[in-house]
Amino acid sequence: MKATPLELARNSYQPKRPRVLTTAAGLHRSDPPAPLDGGEAVRTTFPRTFDLPVVTLTPDATPAPGERRRVGVLLSGGPAPGGHNVIAGLFDGLHAEDPGSELFGFLGGPSGLLTGANKRLSRELVDEYRNTGGFDIIGSGRTKLENDSQFDRALAQAREMELTGLVIVGGDDSNTNACALAEYAAEHGSPLQVIGVPKTIDGDLKSPHIETSFGFDTACKVYAELIGNIQRDARSSLKYWHFIKLMGRSASHITLECALQTQPNVTLISEEIAAGNVELYEIVDRIAEVVCVRAEQGENFGTVLVPEGLIEFIPEMKTLIAEINDVLATSYQEFEALQTFPHKREFVAGRLSPGSTGIYRHLPREIATQLILDRDPHGNVQVARIDTENLLIEMVDVRLKEWHAAGRRVGAFSPQRHFFGYEGRCAAPSNFDADYCYALGTTAAHLLREGLTGYMAIVRQLTRPVDEWSPGGIPLARLMNMERRHGSLRPVIKKALVDLDGPAFKEYVRQRDTWAAETRYLSPGPIQYFGPPEIADRPTRTLELEASR
Amino acid sequence: MKATPLELARNSYQPKRPRVLTTAAGLHRSDPPAPLDGGEAVRTTFPRTFDLPVVTLTPDATPAPGERRRVGVLLSGGPAPGGHNVIAGLFDGLHAEDPGSELFGFLGGPSGLLTGANKRLSRELVDEYRNTGGFDIIGSGRTKLENDSQFDRALAQAREMELTGLVIVGGDDSNTNACALAEYAAEHGSPLQVIGVPKTIDGDLKSPHIETSFGFDTACKVYAELIGNIQRDARSSLKYWHFIKLMGRSASHITLECALQTQPNVTLISEEIAAGNVELYEIVDRIAEVVCVRAEQGENFGTVLVPEGLIEFIPEMKTLIAEINDVLATSYQEFEALQTFPHKREFVAGRLSPGSTGIYRHLPREIATQLILDRDPHGNVQVARIDTENLLIEMVDVRLKEWHAAGRRVGAFSPQRHFFGYEGRCAAPSNFDADYCYALGTTAAHLLREGLTGYMAIVRQLTRPVDEWSPGGIPLARLMNMERRHGSLRPVIKKALVDLDGPAFKEYVRQRDTWAAETRYLSPGPIQYFGPPEIADRPTRTLELEASR
Repeated sequence: MKATPLELARNSYQPKRPRVLTTAAGLHRSDPPAPLDGGEAVRTTFPRTFDLPVVTLTPDATPAPGERRRVGVLLSGGPAPGGHNVIAGLFDGLHAEDPGSELFGFLGGPSGLLTGANKRLSRELVDEYRNTGGFDIIGSGRTKLENDSQFDRALAQAREMELTGLVIVGGDDSNTNACALAEYAAEHGSPLQVIGVPKTIDGDLKSPHIETSFGFDTACKVYAELIGNIQRDARSSLKYWHFIKLMGRSASHITLECALQTQPNVTLISEEIAAGNVELYEIVDRIAEVVCVRAEQGENFGTVLVPEGLIEFIPEMKTLIAEINDVLATSYQEFEALQTFPHKREFVAGRLSPGSTGIYRHLPREIATQLILDRDPHGNVQVARIDTENLLIEMVDVRLKEWHAAGRRVGAFSPQRHFFGYEGRCAAPSNFDADYCYALGTTAAHLLREGLTGYMAIVRQLTRPVDEWSPGGIPLARLMNMERRHGSLRPVIKKALVDLDGPAFKEYVRQRDTWAAETRYLSPGPIQYFGPPEIADRPTRTLELEASR
Repeated sequence: MKATPLELARNSYQPKRPRVLTTAAGLHRSDPPAPLDGGEAVRTTFPRTFDLPVVTLTPDATPAPGERRRVGVLLSGGPAPGGHNVIAGLFDGLHAEDPGSELFGFLGGPSGLLTGANKRLSRELVDEYRNTGGFDIIGSGRTKLENDSQFDRALAQAREMELTGLVIVGGDDSNTNACALAEYAAEHGSPLQVIGVPKTIDGDLKSPHIETSFGFDTACKVYAELIGNIQRDARSSLKYWHFIKLMGRSASHITLECALQTQPNVTLISEEIAAGNVELYEIVDRIAEVVCVRAEQGENFGTVLVPEGLIEFIPEMKTLIAEINDVLATSYQEFEALQTFPHKREFVAGRLSPGSTGIYRHLPREIATQLILDRDPHGNVQVARIDTENLLIEMVDVRLKEWHAAGRRVGAFSPQRHFFGYEGRCAAPSNFDADYCYALGTTAAHLLREGLTGYMAIVRQLTRPVDEWSPGGIPLARLMNMERRHGSLRPVIKKALVDLDGPAFKEYVRQRDTWAAETRYLSPGPIQYFGPPEIADRPTRTLELEASR
């Protein structure tokens, strides 16, 4: 057996399509969005792709004449549910324009474009992958396409294969690079058009024109299914506190969306912690406080959602980590010569600023050791390796014991830990992501047909029926601001962190005290592909709340 | 919002019912199954409940006259998907017999029966919980109901509440105790009838008459969804070896079923390891060998399924753990006086048998420390706390480095670890478990009506359409053998481990070499409640294979 019954059934699912993508549509052009901070510098870097209009597909305009096209596509970075449908939508879009068009997939991400490793995507192959999860049709990779020699090789490869279009499916970095390649091609007289597609389960590739990145919907629903199940277990077994870490290195969108879907007792939002300059001990106290409040009611169980990137958003921890990096860089040999962990920890503690010394000495021993041991090839602390959920568990435990010793009733605290990430990145796309990705792919084909380059394919009005969705494109350069990278200011697409004034965060704030004290758990259950639309086609809460603002 | 759209929709799901449960059915009686080992001793302990017939509901026999009944129900042990439907089926069955009947739920498991903590289950309350996961309608607990004074209190409680029936929903231990209570009641002239219902996600409460325990279907499907997603990620990202530990302390049924559903590269089956007297190093070598074979093909990724109870099934580890327990028991004060982990480890290592010393010294340091540190209140090693998946990862890593140093090509080995357990125990029941549990509950009501006690409610022919399922009952005592518990031989229900001559295991063996070398991953996807029956109503592979034998 190659496919399961569900995969076979999903294979023949026909994504619902925006009406405008089923008719002969041309472009409506409107003003580009206002530049972000540093926009003038971005314009200087991208003179050919900065001052372009926002485009919207409309049946009221005449489409450019169709032609036979040879197009390449590549998948960049971590997988996200729906990637295969972007390719299917692109394939169908190109063939609708001219049945003789050809689509080539570069293998293993951007490196395939540089080495020329590719395969022609036949209809048979594309059909096999429709509505499936994963990026395995052509693989993905993390090679950065960012310097001139790489661009030269990319353009040479495109020339050799007679490609006039390249679709890059990726996150903020990959789309930044897609824009740079588009600019470079235009500058060097290459006919290659470059179109980006917004992918990331993290949900941080977002702007007023990009309502959501694809994959966010499915990944959140998978995690929310599991959180809902665990919460049902918590209130059936009545004895565990579950600390659940969720993927998402930078932004807390996943954690926020999962909280809205499941209503856990405590949710940590990195952006709020950074904005409030909240200290680690305050976070620990807050959790311990909720543990006590619930214990008072006889409820020695609960759930805590923790975003993967939390540590780097706690200002004092960021400082501590930077100082440890400095100490290890400047006194590496002395440090290495020490034979035991206590000596190494003491060595480091003695060389930190007074504030950091205090924090470091109060960390659980295991974490303090982890901070000085696991370093990346540049000698830096590997923040991703820090067991944040364990750090919190150990510190909450200590705090409760202190309170108990001081005579306070703290109840029982029996923790369990979970980390969900890989479970959601390659799930088969929900109906929403299946439809959205297919529309993004088809839209990319339309933008190529219209001769555009340096654009991101977008689809808007996503909370309306699919029929009414509005596809179009936005100039990639208009998503950029200037940021310091490797020591110099560079134009990059701005990561969209959780907006503390946004409706999703506000809705969470409005309810969180109730969720903390009471048990208001919700069980969204597994993603449903069949059944009533209010179940099978519902978008994320984040999208619903943002649309209603 | 109290319930999600899916919960609301599921709430109104009408479980499909066996035809015989929709008509006036009486009992067909047939010979009890042959006694297991030590059957004569079981008969001596349970003279009143041992020599009873197997019963099957049939429309050809006349049912006992209906009467108004007062019945208690309790949930015992870890939660399993479908428990709420057992209660709903029981409630509906009792009311079909007489609309004035009443059902009482004992709170927090067997302890509710002893303390009298209970609530009357109204139709409104039961309706709210139909087809939901969890045991939270009345809670569960792990109090063992096993001695005469407890039985006296239970009977007094039943008398006080005027109950004539008690339904105990639990695993092998709880059903053993249900039988003991039934026997005790009969011996002491109590009118209380006791009926058991086979619950456990572990799938080890099984016999020729019990095709499966409830909850196994749903839990396995949740885990298989996640494994399938992770495997899709593995072959998209092309760089991780995922070690996935699955709940199930004793038997490996869950792991075997998940393997059949997802076709991972390596699956460890505890029962096979015990039967073959396989050493830890052989297991490690086997995994490392598969890593190398796949690396040869350029595939530096894979999946390994590990049953939670593995350690206790490796004969040498079982011996090692027993010896450590002895050492710590006899030299506790000396051991405690030692100040450092290396000294403690050395102390223990020096007092083990030569064989165990060798194994202990070769364990990863972290695990060796864990073995002597985490002890239960009786001073014994906490086997459940051992990070088996981490033990394997570390040892495989060491082995690959040795092979590499010896000049062998071993490829890259980048491991990730997962543990799935709590995610599945309280999932909303699949259609199968929803139907099965509802039928079990209704069947329990029928057995009470027929005046039976000391029976387990069963439903057979589960791979046929629900319409044709065959409900009935089997005397609990006939499931027992004699086992040593707390130093003396006692009659207990025999745990059904994975049958190495059974069709499920054989199917796995037939395919495992192919799955190891090639990438034959399957993605079962999330549980579907709607859609085509081959997707929404399919039973486990284990059940299918066992039915086809």
